[in-house]
Amino acid sequence: MNISDLKKSYINKTLIPRELMTQIKKRIEEHSANPIWIHILSDDELEPYLKRLEACEPSSLPLYGIPFSIKDNIDLAGVPTTAGCLDYSYMPAKSAFAVEALIKAGAIPVGKTTLDQFATGLVGTRSPFGACQNSIDPKYISGGSSSGSAVSVALEMAAFSLGTDTAGSGRVPAAFNNLVGLKPSKGVLSTSGVVPACRSLDCISIFANSTEDAQKVFDVAASFDEADPYSRKMPETQKSVPSSFRFAVPRADQLKFFGDVEAEELFYKAVQSFEEMGGTAVQTDFSPMLEAANLLYYGPWVAERYVAVKDMIENSPASLLDVTRTIIESGKSKTAEDYFNAEYKLKAYRRKADIVMEDIDFALTPTTGTIYTIEEVNADPIQLNTNLGYYTNFMNLLDFSAYAVPAGFRKNGLPFGITLFAEAFEDRKLLQIGERYMQRNNDV
Amino acid sequence: MNISDLKKSYINKTLIPRELMTQIKKRIEEHSANPIWIHILSDDELEPYLKRLEACEPSSLPLYGIPFSIKDNIDLAGVPTTAGCLDYSYMPAKSAFAVEALIKAGAIPVGKTTLDQFATGLVGTRSPFGACQNSIDPKYISGGSSSGSAVSVALEMAAFSLGTDTAGSGRVPAAFNNLVGLKPSKGVLSTSGVVPACRSLDCISIFANSTEDAQKVFDVAASFDEADPYSRKMPETQKSVPSSFRFAVPRADQLKFFGDVEAEELFYKAVQSFEEMGGTAVQTDFSPMLEAANLLYYGPWVAERYVAVKDMIENSPASLLDVTRTIIESGKSKTAEDYFNAEYKLKAYRRKADIVMEDIDFALTPTTGTIYTIEEVNADPIQLNTNLGYYTNFMNLLDFSAYAVPAGFRKNGLPFGITLFAEAFEDRKLLQIGERYMQRNNDV
Repeated sequence: MNISDLKKSYINKTLIPRELMTQIKKRIEEHSANPIWIHILSDDELEPYLKRLEACEPSSLPLYGIPFSIKDNIDLAGVPTTAGCLDYSYMPAKSAFAVEALIKAGAIPVGKTTLDQFATGLVGTRSPFGACQNSIDPKYISGGSSSGSAVSVALEMAAFSLGTDTAGSGRVPAAFNNLVGLKPSKGVLSTSGVVPACRSLDCISIFANSTEDAQKVFDVAASFDEADPYSRKMPETQKSVPSSFRFAVPRADQLKFFGDVEAEELFYKAVQSFEEMGGTAVQTDFSPMLEAANLLYYGPWVAERYVAVKDMIENSPASLLDVTRTIIESGKSKTAEDYFNAEYKLKAYRRKADIVMEDIDFALTPTTGTIYTIEEVNADPIQLNTNLGYYTNFMNLLDFSAYAVPAGFRKNGLPFGITLFAEAFEDRKLLQIGERYMQRNNDV
Repeated sequence: MNISDLKKSYINKTLIPRELMTQIKKRIEEHSANPIWIHILSDDELEPYLKRLEACEPSSLPLYGIPFSIKDNIDLAGVPTTAGCLDYSYMPAKSAFAVEALIKAGAIPVGKTTLDQFATGLVGTRSPFGACQNSIDPKYISGGSSSGSAVSVALEMAAFSLGTDTAGSGRVPAAFNNLVGLKPSKGVLSTSGVVPACRSLDCISIFANSTEDAQKVFDVAASFDEADPYSRKMPETQKSVPSSFRFAVPRADQLKFFGDVEAEELFYKAVQSFEEMGGTAVQTDFSPMLEAANLLYYGPWVAERYVAVKDMIENSPASLLDVTRTIIESGKSKTAEDYFNAEYKLKAYRRKADIVMEDIDFALTPTTGTIYTIEEVNADPIQLNTNLGYYTNFMNLLDFSAYAVPAGFRKNGLPFGITLFAEAFEDRKLLQIGERYMQRNNDV
């Protein structure tokens, strides 16, 4: 399922949105044992979207009839937002700024997808609705926190999905379900109408099957929102990657695969691909990134999660999962002194990162070092989650843009993913080089 | 005393730096009752600077033989830094990055000037060395925290001075001593070698007798410092103010002069001058600025002051003045939750400020609404200090550049000052329009 083919079918009149939605509902039904969805739009709820499309030409709207799913911490008007916590649930009168833009462009909301509660997790198991299963092997985790978003796209229930990505939630599930996951520059997609995790760091992310689709969604959704104080305008000039380029990879001793030998092989294969494409791999000291990553959950930023759900934590603690509450509550004891000491450290890491980034066109890491089964995560929920954030937790603290792309499969059929990252506002550059990599791998 | 005349005299050989320093020492002696200086360089300490200048041509160095004073929270190698607290005192092996640049350019350090302890104050009375007296009327305060810096320039003991400016410390003393005071964009002058007040907000500031001199010092001192994580590069393109321009002034009900009718008249006279220069005054809702200002001492940023002197506050509280300790200690109880709630507010104020600034070339306010006697401040040290920060406290939180310039005198001979401010990195634009204003007022 991709945007271009769907649009062609609509224009050729071999398909209408209503028919597609019937097929999608069937597919959803087939996978009903997997708790992908928190809310699926009823026929009545869908009707206004379909009616509106039936009144206009398929060629008149860039995303005409394109079905998409929405992580359930992002508002869709008239459908409850739960953030994975039923007691938190509220009914938004208005859609999130980005959702509104997509609907206006013709996209059809299929439903609200499950997530690690309050977007706190990278596993997809931290939900009162049950552990979302991997789209390829249900024994395995889907990744989180945007678990349902990724799985709904992988299982063709939506052409794309909006997730959120504070610590890696838009990249890890992409890697685990063989999708692309764009973690845009902070502020480029408005977070108006998004339940905050760490409000100063939160991003809406895009899951899709291809760069072309991610790009099309990004083009519509990336728009300055005056009402969101964290919204930032994209600069007009865009960088691109030259045919002969330099890319950073972490120093060998800083790479962690947690014993996953196949993942390690696949990563080095990806590095080799980029070299064959004209790139020079630059072995780089990743300490500034890895040390910044540690600040996210052990530093003061967890206080933002506490601020976001303080009322509920204080007045109705049993409404949260134990694991979520334990993590978020740790933000309560952080002091402003902790904050500033962490900011000073982060500024120093960022200065070191400046020096790294000045010398290269982009950086390349695994998206995660490995993948786990649901059983493994249930047995050790904190440490394994931490392992999955090793390459992702620093991204927003250091203000990078990132693009997670598939990079082959393990023998058991589970996918491996890599992440390309660059400075803020270099999103389109990453889409470009990511696409070159994927094209080449398809050709080989 | 100005840079251009001094340089001419040196080039014409009608003066040598050694002779100037003898004259300056005499002047310092004459004012020894006023606690302007914490350390005056001895002849031995001066000797290496003079020797070096005697070995080179006056024309070879942009600041050849120009005497300057240094606020005593900025390091000068080999001379103690006290920050206005003897027990805190340490001996720096290296000069601050900006001081080093000025000395390299030929400037001669005269000595270290007094300040409100730990740069916490806008009055100039909060010092164990005594209240620094106004250069024009010793009954009045000099303004602070860079009190000695301003007074040393006003009394011709130095051609310029380095102060610091977190909350207004580089602007208030300029206004009270009829000087220009440039509060550069954050990060444009390195703060390496500066005792932090609020490290994330601190700026080195420049006091001088004229725009020309401030500009010359800025040209030398504004240089990127890789070792300071808060250092920022000036963009290459510089804005300027067109001949027909728009400037914001606070809405009449938001202007506060605390009963100082003459100050009010002088402010409106300044507004009229800018209108006669081709400007259109835009009555502007200053709430975003005024509300941001409140965050500085009542919000979490005071925790930065606590972080900076925590060891001393915890282990030797009697080493601080009561007023300084009381303020700084209030930072201890601030939480990370307080910090993030304040950051969210500040971001919203900044967004509103964006809208204000997009519409104008610069903004104009009084530098302070009034001035007080030393006796008045001693009788009510907290509230009167707060009054003095009304137009200054928001500047660094909202990331503006600011230029304080003289704007006439009250009947009692005390000067009034105005401040022009604009977006970060528009320092040179402010120098330009400030100079146009002063030129015009001299001509009239």
